[in-house]
Amino acid sequence: MDILILNGPNLNQLGRRQPDLYGTRSFDDFLPELAERFPDLRLEYRQSNHEGYLIDHLHQTKANGVVINAGGFTHTSVALADAVACLACPIVEVHLTNLYAREQIRRRSLTAPHCLGVITGFGLEGYALALHALTTAQQAS
Amino acid sequence: MDILILNGPNLNQLGRRQPDLYGTRSFDDFLPELAERFPDLRLEYRQSNHEGYLIDHLHQTKANGVVINAGGFTHTSVALADAVACLACPIVEVHLTNLYAREQIRRRSLTAPHCLGVITGFGLEGYALALHALTTAQQAS
Amino acid sequence: MDILILNGPNLNQLGRRQPDLYGTRSFDDFLPELAERFPDLRLEYRQSNHEGYLIDHLHQTKANGVVINAGGFTHTSVALADAVACLACPIVEVHLTNLYAREQIRRRSLTAPHCLGVITGFGLEGYALALHALTTAQQAS
Amino acid sequence: MDILILNGPNLNQLGRRQPDLYGTRSFDDFLPELAERFPDLRLEYRQSNHEGYLIDHLHQTKANGVVINAGGFTHTSVALADAVACLACPIVEVHLTNLYAREQIRRRSLTAPHCLGVITGFGLEGYALALHALTTAQQAS
Amino acid sequence: MDILILNGPNLNQLGRRQPDLYGTRSFDDFLPELAERFPDLRLEYRQSNHEGYLIDHLHQTKANGVVINAGGFTHTSVALADAVACLACPIVEVHLTNLYAREQIRRRSLTAPHCLGVITGFGLEGYALALHALTTAQQAS
Amino acid sequence: MDILILNGPNLNQLGRRQPDLYGTRSFDDFLPELAERFPDLRLEYRQSNHEGYLIDHLHQTKANGVVINAGGFTHTSVALADAVACLACPIVEVHLTNLYAREQIRRRSLTAPHCLGVITGFGLEGYALALHALTTAQQAS
Amino acid sequence: MDILILNGPNLNQLGRRQPDLYGTRSFDDFLPELAERFPDLRLEYRQSNHEGYLIDHLHQTKANGVVINAGGFTHTSVALADAVACLACPIVEVHLTNLYAREQIRRRSLTAPHCLGVITGFGLEGYALALHALTTAQQAS
Amino acid sequence: MDILILNGPNLNQLGRRQPDLYGTRSFDDFLPELAERFPDLRLEYRQSNHEGYLIDHLHQTKANGVVINAGGFTHTSVALADAVACLACPIVEVHLTNLYAREQIRRRSLTAPHCLGVITGFGLEGYALALHALTTAQQAS
Amino acid sequence: MDILILNGPNLNQLGRRQPDLYGTRSFDDFLPELAERFPDLRLEYRQSNHEGYLIDHLHQTKANGVVINAGGFTHTSVALADAVACLACPIVEVHLTNLYAREQIRRRSLTAPHCLGVITGFGLEGYALALHALTTAQQAS
Amino acid sequence: MDILILNGPNLNQLGRRQPDLYGTRSFDDFLPELAERFPDLRLEYRQSNHEGYLIDHLHQTKANGVVINAGGFTHTSVALADAVACLACPIVEVHLTNLYAREQIRRRSLTAPHCLGVITGFGLEGYALALHALTTAQQAS
Amino acid sequence: MDILILNGPNLNQLGRRQPDLYGTRSFDDFLPELAERFPDLRLEYRQSNHEGYLIDHLHQTKANGVVINAGGFTHTSVALADAVACLACPIVEVHLTNLYAREQIRRRSLTAPHCLGVITGFGLEGYALALHALTTAQQAS
Amino acid sequence: MDILILNGPNLNQLGRRQPDLYGTRSFDDFLPELAERFPDLRLEYRQSNHEGYLIDHLHQTKANGVVINAGGFTHTSVALADAVACLACPIVEVHLTNLYAREQIRRRSLTAPHCLGVITGFGLEGYALALHALTTAQQAS
Repeated sequence: MDILILNGPNLNQLGRRQPDLYGTRSFDDFLPELAERFPDLRLEYRQSNHEGYLIDHLHQTKANGVVINAGGFTHTSVALADAVACLACPIVEVHLTNLYAREQIRRRSLTAPHCLGVITGFGLEGYALALHALTTAQQAS
Repeated sequence: MDILILNGPNLNQLGRRQPDLYGTRSFDDFLPELAERFPDLRLEYRQSNHEGYLIDHLHQTKANGVVINAGGFTHTSVALADAVACLACPIVEVHLTNLYAREQIRRRSLTAPHCLGVITGFGLEGYALALHALTTAQQAS
Repeated sequence: MDILILNGPNLNQLGRRQPDLYGTRSFDDFLPELAERFPDLRLEYRQSNHEGYLIDHLHQTKANGVVINAGGFTHTSVALADAVACLACPIVEVHLTNLYAREQIRRRSLTAPHCLGVITGFGLEGYALALHALTTAQQAS
Repeated sequence: MDILILNGPNLNQLGRRQPDLYGTRSFDDFLPELAERFPDLRLEYRQSNHEGYLIDHLHQTKANGVVINAGGFTHTSVALADAVACLACPIVEVHLTNLYAREQIRRRSLTAPHCLGVITGFGLEGYALALHALTTAQQAS
Repeated sequence: MDILILNGPNLNQLGRRQPDLYGTRSFDDFLPELAERFPDLRLEYRQSNHEGYLIDHLHQTKANGVVINAGGFTHTSVALADAVACLACPIVEVHLTNLYAREQIRRRSLTAPHCLGVITGFGLEGYALALHALTTAQQAS
Repeated sequence: MDILILNGPNLNQLGRRQPDLYGTRSFDDFLPELAERFPDLRLEYRQSNHEGYLIDHLHQTKANGVVINAGGFTHTSVALADAVACLACPIVEVHLTNLYAREQIRRRSLTAPHCLGVITGFGLEGYALALHALTTAQQAS
Repeated sequence: MDILILNGPNLNQLGRRQPDLYGTRSFDDFLPELAERFPDLRLEYRQSNHEGYLIDHLHQTKANGVVINAGGFTHTSVALADAVACLACPIVEVHLTNLYAREQIRRRSLTAPHCLGVITGFGLEGYALALHALTTAQQAS
Repeated sequence: MDILILNGPNLNQLGRRQPDLYGTRSFDDFLPELAERFPDLRLEYRQSNHEGYLIDHLHQTKANGVVINAGGFTHTSVALADAVACLACPIVEVHLTNLYAREQIRRRSLTAPHCLGVITGFGLEGYALALHALTTAQQAS
Repeated sequence: MDILILNGPNLNQLGRRQPDLYGTRSFDDFLPELAERFPDLRLEYRQSNHEGYLIDHLHQTKANGVVINAGGFTHTSVALADAVACLACPIVEVHLTNLYAREQIRRRSLTAPHCLGVITGFGLEGYALALHALTTAQQAS
Repeated sequence: MDILILNGPNLNQLGRRQPDLYGTRSFDDFLPELAERFPDLRLEYRQSNHEGYLIDHLHQTKANGVVINAGGFTHTSVALADAVACLACPIVEVHLTNLYAREQIRRRSLTAPHCLGVITGFGLEGYALALHALTTAQQAS
Repeated sequence: MDILILNGPNLNQLGRRQPDLYGTRSFDDFLPELAERFPDLRLEYRQSNHEGYLIDHLHQTKANGVVINAGGFTHTSVALADAVACLACPIVEVHLTNLYAREQIRRRSLTAPHCLGVITGFGLEGYALALHALTTAQQAS
Repeated sequence: MDILILNGPNLNQLGRRQPDLYGTRSFDDFLPELAERFPDLRLEYRQSNHEGYLIDHLHQTKANGVVINAGGFTHTSVALADAVACLACPIVEVHLTNLYAREQIRRRSLTAPHCLGVITGFGLEGYALALHALTTAQQAS
């Protein structure tokens, strides 16, 4: 099962950016551990601060499932939401922090209505939960 | 590790209520499977359609973690949210359906800001993800 | 044909509560007259100030039709509206006063979208109109 | 007892217009049945797509009661609402569909606050319920 | 100087309609007195409950000044406001009651921005004030 | 192919009304040119400042396509929108000016959701574009 | 009959302030002409840029009628509105420009609901119209 | 003089719940002191997390005055507000914290408009102030 | 203990202003009684209709506690709220009428978030309650 | 005459993306047909999912007219709207679907106020209508 | 070049008022340094907590430039904004704190639209920046 | 001291774009003059129309201070605001025009709350003021 993990803007700063809020570990450091915990999944990881790159990549992915954390684009990008809506495979939206406990503008997700579900507030572990969810969803179908 | 799973109004109707939306399996049917998958956890399960009962039970719980699906109270009950805010242990909010894809009134959660995080849209499997999340949170602390 | 008449909070005070607004006759006084006027219907009457009781009762009713006046819960309870949405039989919502002529908060009904229709402003007679409506609806189906 | 039944815009299309929503029977077809069911009432029926005509007619009516379905004007016409407010006799507002289950713009009724009450969602039978209500109201006064 | 006085919906009911609010004198009764007080003006008086008639009449008027009380259309009719905006001569908007002291919906006037000014709250005397204003405006130009 | 071109309030003033905004040519002057450019279409042209007339005419039209410019009614008339929704043939909404560049109230169109599409901002040429669109739509079906 | 004319902030700048909007004549220049036109009235004129001064003066006035142009305080001062509400004599609110044709914030008047009526858009002549209105109101009472 | 002190949801947690916000003393600990300070009053104390219980109790109380702190229900319960409106005796609403300094949702009180007044922000001492207020109100009447 | 009682606009009219709403007793009449009831407090009383005066006085006060009723400024003055926020001593906000039962604009208090608490609806007795509250607060600290 | 056709995000997916909504034909397939129908125009076609690319291209275009379908950026990009506002040549905005019949967020167009006009709802044919409009606009100038 | 520096309410408390937010230095202490840094400018400094005083002073100033920090009046005073709009010389608005990082009510400035520009967030140094800006603006003109 | 000046979308068009609004001088022309006026600062200048580029560059900058004019992204980009929030050095936001005097959408800045302060309305000179501000801020620290 091929899974695309797609991270949006500022997630390349993880570990350096506002560590009180986002923690001290980078995604690059976390990825090998994640791969080890899910040996049956082939994980492709992409991060970009460019909305267009994220859209391009979603258009061409052949993955059987997508984990997306679109960062700030989550709340503002109709274009990215339209790209998510194009996909046929199941998508899980992840956020590191609990969006319900943050500013008003982060309560709205334009991408989430086109996803299977949303996991928010569990830090990097949220990506593992998302992989669990995708695996289960596939088994159910 | 003691975990309280607390379900709110109408969740006793699971399997019978709007099966297109909520699926055909009842929680009572699902609970033993869940317990089997998490043998290290002691699960206490409560469901009530009475807001006061849910508040009473949260006041007296000794659990090390709570999984809560407050159903319709999620969106309207300041009283229940205040009770959740009283708890010292980590709490995970679960919803069967993807709230971001439903009516506007379900976008707001009064309880979620007081939780560790929210898992929404994965049906009954969301409870398993929540238990994963609570287990991991405990290990991290 | 079995009909459940379900009254919500403060309707046990009818006749005593703000008589200028709600009239001087109690529901208990009115019920026998209503039963007499609809001899072909078996009427079950329940009133509660407890939201959870109303939800519980809706879950277990076997009635062929429901007349509901959820009082103040009409405007605030997603949980009760979800319970109403679970029912398969036709439901008619009744209000004693004309909600369109009252405060802004009473203009919104969370339960009404799940009902066959709404009758508002005719005092106790509204229940008789609701029974007419249910009878006709059954004949039409 | 003289009753004016006043239908507003597009109600002359009943039976032809969006039958899934409004049914397949025209008002002209229904009126004789209605008259037969209420032999003690003298029914005058008027329909117009012209707001001015409806206002003119309300100004000059001598009826003892009015049943009004102002169609789309219900939600937008202050002028018609002012005309309704001029009347001394009891008025009942009727809508074929359940306005609470339709678009947001149909939730507001400018005419309803000036009526005795509102009956919405019971199709043509709503007119019969309105006549019941007017008859009862007269008996009570 | 030719002046058109154009009254909108329900103003033909003046004297009969809600006398507590609008007084007990009809416009037809007031008009001769008004003409007598302004002997230098040629007054044309029109009233209609039909929005289309009011628009038609504004299109064809040759008056040097217009006094308009568009009644309920004041607050809702973009079409009438567009017709008012077509006129080259000065226009004065009049309302019998003080709109600032009434319901929220009467605070908005779509026609007023296209008028020289507005006189609201002085009953029938407002029309005399409007004629004063038009006379003065002409002298000033 | 029979086409009804239906113009609403104030469009009879075209050429005279606010020429900076709406141009100096009347629709009557434009219509023969339009007919000449579309020799295969039978054009019926109606204009009225009366909302009721427009609704009446839409009810009885036998056209295979409709071009509608409802003027100010576009933004306010639920009744007219309901009449448009009754039609089975394709409808194209036209506006002379670019509504997106005008006042806030003109951003909302109640009729447009029931049309095939909208053409706004091209002056009288918009009617020609609408006829192109209707012709193409028919060929495609 | 004693009349207080009370002008609020910036009206001492009349004639100098934004003459395109407010004209080139000062109130001091206009006042004698006004007095001459209403020989039966004893006019007291006060202007202040101090909200407190205006309130103080309203508390102690013995006038039989008040003409008030509270300038910018009109739209923002609950305190001044409360002072106006204390007065027993009739009050007329005047504005030089047509408030309906200006910015949104000037559409709201906190003082107007406590006045007999409002005259807006007629420049200095508005004060003369207000005196006419007060005179007539007194005669009527 | 019989006084009912009625506390709503979570107030049984006082002393344990968020002590930074609500203090460290329980109501049960405070009640005897309160009784001692008001020896002329017969105090009945009730607390419940059940909205229905609070409504039931208000219906049957024979008290000459009520002190109510409805906790989270204050902001959301039309049903409880309706029950408060049924009472004939004076009612004082108390809140431990200063609601004006908290979240937006706590600014609205549905119950307060039906009370004599509101005392907010003085911790447990607010109940003593409320008893003072009730005593004084009785003396004044 | 030195206490400043600071009353804002229109409170010098107490007893004369809208007695149905505000009562028939002036503050000057009430003050000696208040002083007598609190013999341990040194009361300084100031009233002004001038926002600037109130700010000036708050800047220079040496009081150990302040009771403020800012009248209409409560709802509109950021400047006064900023002055209140400068004070180090405890402040209690008082209103004669129950603000929750009045117009929407009186629901917002800009000053209250900077106060210890608010007492609203008990007429002049509210000042006595405020003094109780300040005394208790001092004892507690 | 040189025309730039500029398509924004996800329009490269046309034919593959949500075909029920957007049809089954790609723009690349449509472009040669379009060029053939307008032999006098030199068409340059660009598509990008990158907002910055679209802005860059608008800055450097030498076209005499632009047809733009900015996709999701239409509703969210002030930056792109500013770039459109920089252009001196006429611009026509096109949308494949009828934006008035879709979600609320698609009702707002930030770019449209800077365009000559908008054509929405006619699928790929909308581009042909836009070219007609640009040709006519040039002839008129 | 004559410059008026006009400070509004509470700025006389600078150095004493909320020093965490506004710093520990008073304006009186800062002014000589400012004068020394701009030897070519003649600085007049005024501060008042009285809105009327600020308006009066703006009316009579002969300065060639104005630096204004209207404190809390910035957000609420239409009267002061009107006075600012009367001035012919360039005006620069200054705020000590970054208004964009504070409460919602401080996001709106009624005076700013009438100024050359705004400098916010640089503490007392903002006044020096404003003088730089005024000097440059004069050189450019 | 190293300073990054980062300009967002359309600022490469300065001098060419809407010169009435933004002036006739390009930033490239202005930069050498700016460098000359601040000889102690090492200025790095970047401009891009690509949001992703701006975020990338902010992530990697080693500057001691940043001057940012994010153009249209200021008002819409949560992603860019998050990148600004990551920076540890002081940041000054600059806008050429006075945002308070422009459209509503430009009143909101998502980036400004994370900056030291904002300078808006002084054209290119705003960048010089920003450098002054950064220099002073450094000296103060």
